[in-house]
Amino acid sequence: MPRHDTISFLSDFGHDDEFVGVVKSVIREIAPHAAVIDLTHSIPAFDVRAGSLALARAVQYVARGIVLAVVDPGVGTDRRAVAIEVAGGDGIFVGPDNGLLASAVAMAGGAERAVGLTNPIYQLPAPGPTFAGRDIFGPAAAHLANGLPFEELGEEVDVHTLMPGILPITRVEGDRLIAEVLWVDRYGNAQLNVDPDEIAAFGDTVLLHFHQTVRSARRAATYGTIGRGGLGLITDSYGLVSVCLERQSAAAELGLAAGDEVQLEQGDDRPLGVTSPVTLRLGGQ
Amino acid sequence: MPRHDTISFLSDFGHDDEFVGVVKSVIREIAPHAAVIDLTHSIPAFDVRAGSLALARAVQYVARGIVLAVVDPGVGTDRRAVAIEVAGGDGIFVGPDNGLLASAVAMAGGAERAVGLTNPIYQLPAPGPTFAGRDIFGPAAAHLANGLPFEELGEEVDVHTLMPGILPITRVEGDRLIAEVLWVDRYGNAQLNVDPDEIAAFGDTVLLHFHQTVRSARRAATYGTIGRGGLGLITDSYGLVSVCLERQSAAAELGLAAGDEVQLEQGDDRPLGVTSPVTLRLGGQ
Amino acid sequence: MPRHDTISFLSDFGHDDEFVGVVKSVIREIAPHAAVIDLTHSIPAFDVRAGSLALARAVQYVARGIVLAVVDPGVGTDRRAVAIEVAGGDGIFVGPDNGLLASAVAMAGGAERAVGLTNPIYQLPAPGPTFAGRDIFGPAAAHLANGLPFEELGEEVDVHTLMPGILPITRVEGDRLIAEVLWVDRYGNAQLNVDPDEIAAFGDTVLLHFHQTVRSARRAATYGTIGRGGLGLITDSYGLVSVCLERQSAAAELGLAAGDEVQLEQGDDRPLGVTSPVTLRLGGQ
Repeated sequence: MPRHDTISFLSDFGHDDEFVGVVKSVIREIAPHAAVIDLTHSIPAFDVRAGSLALARAVQYVARGIVLAVVDPGVGTDRRAVAIEVAGGDGIFVGPDNGLLASAVAMAGGAERAVGLTNPIYQLPAPGPTFAGRDIFGPAAAHLANGLPFEELGEEVDVHTLMPGILPITRVEGDRLIAEVLWVDRYGNAQLNVDPDEIAAFGDTVLLHFHQTVRSARRAATYGTIGRGGLGLITDSYGLVSVCLERQSAAAELGLAAGDEVQLEQGDDRPLGVTSPVTLRLGGQ
Repeated sequence: MPRHDTISFLSDFGHDDEFVGVVKSVIREIAPHAAVIDLTHSIPAFDVRAGSLALARAVQYVARGIVLAVVDPGVGTDRRAVAIEVAGGDGIFVGPDNGLLASAVAMAGGAERAVGLTNPIYQLPAPGPTFAGRDIFGPAAAHLANGLPFEELGEEVDVHTLMPGILPITRVEGDRLIAEVLWVDRYGNAQLNVDPDEIAAFGDTVLLHFHQTVRSARRAATYGTIGRGGLGLITDSYGLVSVCLERQSAAAELGLAAGDEVQLEQGDDRPLGVTSPVTLRLGGQ
Repeated sequence: MPRHDTISFLSDFGHDDEFVGVVKSVIREIAPHAAVIDLTHSIPAFDVRAGSLALARAVQYVARGIVLAVVDPGVGTDRRAVAIEVAGGDGIFVGPDNGLLASAVAMAGGAERAVGLTNPIYQLPAPGPTFAGRDIFGPAAAHLANGLPFEELGEEVDVHTLMPGILPITRVEGDRLIAEVLWVDRYGNAQLNVDPDEIAAFGDTVLLHFHQTVRSARRAATYGTIGRGGLGLITDSYGLVSVCLERQSAAAELGLAAGDEVQLEQGDDRPLGVTSPVTLRLGGQ
């Protein structure tokens, strides 16, 4: 019987409560051989988009096996609980069918089979339908790790009916590339939904328009070469363009948060002063 | 020799310091075969009551073996350090004898044997008696996982002298059920010490009196069926009644915190408008 | 081939993002047999000094094997990435050569061999050089756990060229011992860089001068014997002198933070009133 040794686990459960520990306890009782790797549990509560993006960033690195992902504001309603097979069964995603899994599944090659987690044999009885991580998703992941045939978990789901993900894409307006902050990391780097190729023609200096402000930023290879106080545009560790400051939070300095629009435009590569930030007030505000 | 494979670990050590990591390192050196499952380490500092409640919520799900729990404001004083056997030795609780373990031990069937952790052979030498998790409790858990006979850890303690837990119970006054907030979770759900049966006769609408305010709440099966903006009373995943809002923090909205008194009373099931929140000022304040 | 079973992992990655999970996923794929023990990931961002001190506190307890430590503000610049062997190969430290590892390496017996992590065979390809934990340090730790010969990771580094650590030392000025807060822990205890022997002659009552204030503190053996409201000086679990309050944060009460100077002076052991805190304003401020 094929078995999986690793369950990679992402959620919005946080660390203040015992939720993560309880799910891992349930997994431990069912599948003691399985190692659980915590991807993160600090997805903001209910934030399916942020969870989806974190999972997509992580997925190319997760160990072969099972990915358990739970950001589930619709728990207990008619949103489906699903398991999705990818890569000929080398990978299985378990979680709510609310878009959370979609981008990561696509990056892993796309959904090949899916089932709804409807078989009560593989669920824990519970006083209420509010903790599906413990009662439905965790047990499903553990039973799959034990080699339970995929189709035992419930009725097949047509993969074309799975909820798609929403990845914001850039667009061009005049001379500008209209982009969006996908994520602000712990260090305050603001990742944009921009591929470095999209701004290759802009040169070394790029103007950033956001919140009625304009700032000039320099392309740089590493945080350490941005220069203190100047804004940098870095190709980050996931291959996207990030707005950064050296050893400071660019997001805090600029007031940028996930979801904010940033417009990029070619800067003039004046030989002097180009890294000094410029702040212009547009309009009366 | 019987061995235990799992140590479930709860504490108020937090994640800012290396306390949890050091205790796990100590366990790893003594009992490398044992898996440590972190239940939570975010119990508020010194809050024995909160730790006791979290442990009681988790205990029915923890894997067989050893439970290591450390919330220990009296560390180094004459409070006892103990190990408590339950379920014919299938489970052992290790921690301070300050009430932290009591409710969980009771839920696991009650204390059958106990010892004080007084044998210095199974402790780490330390410059001061302030980190018992590292020097006493962690090593005791690890040695027990290795199959050390229970009685080797120290002198027997009469289980009737163990510190009892303090679980607040409801009482009835007139038409009202006087209850208490046990716990506010990450999502802002406020768990009450109320069994659903206690308010079954109140019908679908229940008045909540707290902080000189009255709010009307509707019984609901899931967060998703509360309806935006209305208060819900849900039977939560532990079988107790929780005050909830859909995708919002009820506790933040209502100003409720653990330990607050909430009085419940039958609402009038008017067919219209019942879910709209009502706020009344009682008295002059 | 020698193998290591444990990788002890410390970083400033925090828990908000998936950084820790991704590094552990990478390790899991390369060295599935290795257990990763998280020491802490809450070192303040970029704070090499705080990371160095946490690692030094933990190192005497870490399990034999590999220590992976990443606080790396200079990632991608010309700071070296290194592995350092100690104790005849029983221990290997992996991390940036920026002083982070120095104190812990010294406590583990000193560097015996070192290599720069320059061999691309044992690195992950990446779009940019900004996540060395994932692309360089994590893989190096995992390959070492698999028994890869140390020298395969890159060119030998002269151990005398490794960046030294900066451990602040006390000095005596007149009647005073000039000390520094090394660390404030979760409970608000302020650890000083003071060995108990250095203040043995000061008697049971010690005056603390800091921030233009003087407070009187009593030597005490445990938190529980300080007495409510009075300041205590405890020999903490690492053998250094800490400023403490019973069940309260001394650091918050006194406004002390890591790096602050504290001057210690013999107090007069008056028989009455000695534990009541005294606050004096010195100078005009």
